Amino acid sequence: MARVVVDVMPKAEILDPQGQAIVGALGRLGVAGIADVRQGKRFELEVDDSVDDATLERIAEELLTNTVIENFSVSRVS
Amino acid sequence: MARVVVDVMPKAEILDPQGQAIVGALGRLGVAGIADVRQGKRFELEVDDSVDDATLERIAEELLTNTVIENFSVSRVS
Repeated sequence: MARVVVDVMPKAEILDPQGQAIVGALGRLGVAGIADVRQGKRFELEVDDSVDDATLERIAEELLTNTVIENFSVSRVS
Repeated sequence: MARVVVDVMPKAEILDPQGQAIVGALGRLGVAGIADVRQGKRFELEVDDSVDDATLERIAEELLTNTVIENFSVSRVS
């Protein structure tokens, strides 16, 4: 078994209202110095050692990411 | 400016229906070898260099995480 992390983030040119809401909340709470927040998703997969990188890429691209508005990255951890 | 990543994941003992839905979808799509999927959140913050680790920890714990059901980790990148 291997652990795989897939990070999915909104593309830079896409507005992120959730992130902007957090920036606004921080301002109201009196926390200074946070210029920007972007919110995305993190998936942790437990995969069999037989699963190759191409399959992981396909899962990330076709099932976990909306490639119109999001970028993804796949990394094996431990 | 520094970039900070906050990862927020459901605690191990908490059911994750979104992750289970993905496991089910993979099975129906004929992708074998994925034993488990957990879905969490990833926040990318652009913070001023004056923001210290204690402040980041407080933001992650009080604003970004529901500590009843989620764990978080804070890391500075680049």
